[in-house]
Amino acid sequence: MGFDLLKGKRGIIFGALNDMSIAWKVAERAYEEGARFTLSNTPVACRMGEVVELGKKCEAEIIPADATNVADLENVFQKSMDVLGGKVDFVLHSIGMSLNVRKKRVYHDLDYNYLTKTLDISAISFHKMLQVAFKMDAVSEWGSVLGLSYVAAQRTFYGYNDMADAKALLESIGRSFGYIYGRERKVRVNTISQSPTVTTAGSGVKGIDGLIDFSDRMSPLGNADAADCADYCLTMFSDLTRKVTMQNLFHDGGFSNVGMSLRAMTQYNKSFDTDDIETKY
Amino acid sequence: MGFDLLKGKRGIIFGALNDMSIAWKVAERAYEEGARFTLSNTPVACRMGEVVELGKKCEAEIIPADATNVADLENVFQKSMDVLGGKVDFVLHSIGMSLNVRKKRVYHDLDYNYLTKTLDISAISFHKMLQVAFKMDAVSEWGSVLGLSYVAAQRTFYGYNDMADAKALLESIGRSFGYIYGRERKVRVNTISQSPTVTTAGSGVKGIDGLIDFSDRMSPLGNADAADCADYCLTMFSDLTRKVTMQNLFHDGGFSNVGMSLRAMTQYNKSFDTDDIETKY
Amino acid sequence: MGFDLLKGKRGIIFGALNDMSIAWKVAERAYEEGARFTLSNTPVACRMGEVVELGKKCEAEIIPADATNVADLENVFQKSMDVLGGKVDFVLHSIGMSLNVRKKRVYHDLDYNYLTKTLDISAISFHKMLQVAFKMDAVSEWGSVLGLSYVAAQRTFYGYNDMADAKALLESIGRSFGYIYGRERKVRVNTISQSPTVTTAGSGVKGIDGLIDFSDRMSPLGNADAADCADYCLTMFSDLTRKVTMQNLFHDGGFSNVGMSLRAMTQYNKSFDTDDIETKY
Amino acid sequence: MGFDLLKGKRGIIFGALNDMSIAWKVAERAYEEGARFTLSNTPVACRMGEVVELGKKCEAEIIPADATNVADLENVFQKSMDVLGGKVDFVLHSIGMSLNVRKKRVYHDLDYNYLTKTLDISAISFHKMLQVAFKMDAVSEWGSVLGLSYVAAQRTFYGYNDMADAKALLESIGRSFGYIYGRERKVRVNTISQSPTVTTAGSGVKGIDGLIDFSDRMSPLGNADAADCADYCLTMFSDLTRKVTMQNLFHDGGFSNVGMSLRAMTQYNKSFDTDDIETKY
Repeated sequence: MGFDLLKGKRGIIFGALNDMSIAWKVAERAYEEGARFTLSNTPVACRMGEVVELGKKCEAEIIPADATNVADLENVFQKSMDVLGGKVDFVLHSIGMSLNVRKKRVYHDLDYNYLTKTLDISAISFHKMLQVAFKMDAVSEWGSVLGLSYVAAQRTFYGYNDMADAKALLESIGRSFGYIYGRERKVRVNTISQSPTVTTAGSGVKGIDGLIDFSDRMSPLGNADAADCADYCLTMFSDLTRKVTMQNLFHDGGFSNVGMSLRAMTQYNKSFDTDDIETKY
Repeated sequence: MGFDLLKGKRGIIFGALNDMSIAWKVAERAYEEGARFTLSNTPVACRMGEVVELGKKCEAEIIPADATNVADLENVFQKSMDVLGGKVDFVLHSIGMSLNVRKKRVYHDLDYNYLTKTLDISAISFHKMLQVAFKMDAVSEWGSVLGLSYVAAQRTFYGYNDMADAKALLESIGRSFGYIYGRERKVRVNTISQSPTVTTAGSGVKGIDGLIDFSDRMSPLGNADAADCADYCLTMFSDLTRKVTMQNLFHDGGFSNVGMSLRAMTQYNKSFDTDDIETKY
Repeated sequence: MGFDLLKGKRGIIFGALNDMSIAWKVAERAYEEGARFTLSNTPVACRMGEVVELGKKCEAEIIPADATNVADLENVFQKSMDVLGGKVDFVLHSIGMSLNVRKKRVYHDLDYNYLTKTLDISAISFHKMLQVAFKMDAVSEWGSVLGLSYVAAQRTFYGYNDMADAKALLESIGRSFGYIYGRERKVRVNTISQSPTVTTAGSGVKGIDGLIDFSDRMSPLGNADAADCADYCLTMFSDLTRKVTMQNLFHDGGFSNVGMSLRAMTQYNKSFDTDDIETKY
Repeated sequence: MGFDLLKGKRGIIFGALNDMSIAWKVAERAYEEGARFTLSNTPVACRMGEVVELGKKCEAEIIPADATNVADLENVFQKSMDVLGGKVDFVLHSIGMSLNVRKKRVYHDLDYNYLTKTLDISAISFHKMLQVAFKMDAVSEWGSVLGLSYVAAQRTFYGYNDMADAKALLESIGRSFGYIYGRERKVRVNTISQSPTVTTAGSGVKGIDGLIDFSDRMSPLGNADAADCADYCLTMFSDLTRKVTMQNLFHDGGFSNVGMSLRAMTQYNKSFDTDDIETKY
């Protein structure tokens, strides 16, 4: 492809880790579409060879930051404006992590310090980013800010744990700040609720395979992957979607609005084909 | 039980057919709670021994009506007020039917005459009921009108066909008329979105078993049955819920807000235990 | 602008009447973006000079059709494929009309023949269009079908009357058919819920001014206009949104997710500035 | 009234401060309906004469607790079981506070320490309460836990500030924990989204009057007050609503599903009656 859809636009992309990351695909596609941008991630991630490689490929400066640290975020926005030569037009927040999940604390046995961290990293960082950008007046009029969410913000998925609450908080922050940023500066803020996506973090998680299979069979178009998501993000950064704000946009092959599909039900019913069949009721 | 929760209240219950019907259970429980009411159904149904029996048991007059016929509905409301000695306090609309489903016309091969009938019987009849009641001023101040819906109004369930659209229309009518009836007469209008319930009509349908099993395993409290639903209807007819209106209330053991449960996923994963396991991806 | 976003794509646009129509703007912009398409409207509308003019300007054949008539729709799809040289990639349904509104029948005094017409013209026509297209296999894989809706499908706006129910039905049809069309042919179906837009039909309606003013002050980005909507439709027709389906997408400057804005509240409070101020409570 | 609806039931009510509190009204009504319960609030509140008075009136022990402190909550549940003679059947969480609101920090200038406190007090305390109860197995099978929310969780109300995000988080916690508590112990968890209610805290807030007036005119049944809310809570604690879980239930006279009402629009239009009228467009 390559429509020059983002020609002349400046942006900041948070969260590209490796070529499985959604943020990574967004960077590649935004570059193809003519945007210039900076990349930001944690200091550790920024030192990884892959991120450095991406920066070169996309001619993007890499600016390390702890996204929960206001001073770090101020630095990212200031440096980005310096490097790019002006206010930015788009920002991607693709950040999320739960220590409760990592440490295998189930939802009815949460560690509350971990929960505070989950919310700070995965949701409040979005507010901090927006507040920093707002105070520094770092986003151009009609700019576009995106966060990435998951349908667990609306419906409970066993095992998704406190990340569900983090995503609900993230979406609420998108609405709440979107109202103010729209009113004051004509900047739009939205979240994209993406299909479960196999990333480095997710790929090793036990049980995730079954859920991704179910999700895929439930979705009439199948799960959306990271590359699909990148394309969708481009439209939301472009000037063609200027009046869309405060929304949570499902990008999931239809999953969010399916109660039961033929494909998933057919598969489900196979579970009864053998010994279970007698005891089904 | 028996709290006298509906003591002194008058009502009309549409749609009791046999002891599997939700409307039947509502009649039994409303009677226990001290209400007096009339029963209405199609002329054919009203001649069935079971409905006659229910009428006797609940001391309820049976008034036949085609719920798509305005004159018939006027007759039901007039006779009910005559028999019960005043305006009614509650109305239950438990009516739905799709000829497309019955005649096995799939959703991408609908017969449009059947669709018009589906919408008329299953949704527009609710408007007719409300408009007749409103014009005759047949419902007391703070009265309560309920329709029965299903989550297919929000999410697609393969096989539910044009009934999904009928339920979406029904819920919209509840909101639209609820606004006016509330504003003008302090009457509340709501729909209850109930778990899939095995009724006479549904019990023979191929494929419904699998869906009910899935729904039950998805719902942390299991599917709600007709008796549960009757209890919930009582609270909505009582004076304890006077400020609830224009709502669609999920009564489904939690199903509507679950994306994937442990029990359903465990069952789903069994489908891969044998020969499928290699080809899962 | 002009990104060649729809280069090589074929489409059908239903409902362009004059330069205030959303469909008109979509046609102009789709042409700029490199699409070829046909235009369809009622026979009466198609004879109007303006529509003929639009056809010339966009090099688009005009094919008259009553969108409630299956044979007419078959003709539109067949002729379009003939003229354009293949299956179509996008379809816009921008059709709605209520005789109850026109004849000033309020919602609690509906004429049921008019209601049937409202639903047939404004919602069921969408199903007919989809079913015809599906049966004729007239839409390419990864094609995109859009309907236009309004937030009255979710929340009651006094005066919007039975069009609210029609929009709820339209959105349900989008979901229901979207599931099937996605599963079987990888075609996506969505509705766009647009700000109240001054069109020829709407511009003379009493009371609409106040609502549009309120809506504009409630929306942090102001109301979206027809040109904005056209841009948004382009993104949904493009290949960048392939995994978005079964959605109702709010394009409304944020209105749908605002409960009360500073601007609207400030205006509202002015209503108490004079004689009312004493009696506010 | 007095139906003995909660006869034999034991409960814990958090958050009764004075006779304007919703929790206060719930206590009074639960007592009338035959329940026995304990009351909990902050140590400071518990020493106030009014709370002591309520305790006497309802024969309820008062147990001070900081609801963000797990040990305090364990103490409340343990003492309540001791005093009441067994597991509890219902719990009300009516707790919320924002230091950002109190200290007049606007939403685009939040103090993040205050935000952490807002979330901890107003939302995470609900999780702590549930987790403590779950671990101590302190709630009977088919017990009912309620939190109080506001529609700002779904739509932005200017001035509601970070409480909107707290309510979104609260509702998410209700869903997430409701799934587990239902699955493991048949306990249901719901939130009630209540009309804006004049309580001690709210009554002095500038600007709240206008919002309450608007809300009242938007709602066909008017705003629900604290006494109405108490009645509704009773139904949710009763055995008649056993299959309702993971829901957010709007108790608001219809507000949540109204886009614009006749009464509110009429009032709004008065704002243009004088000097504004020329400049409306």
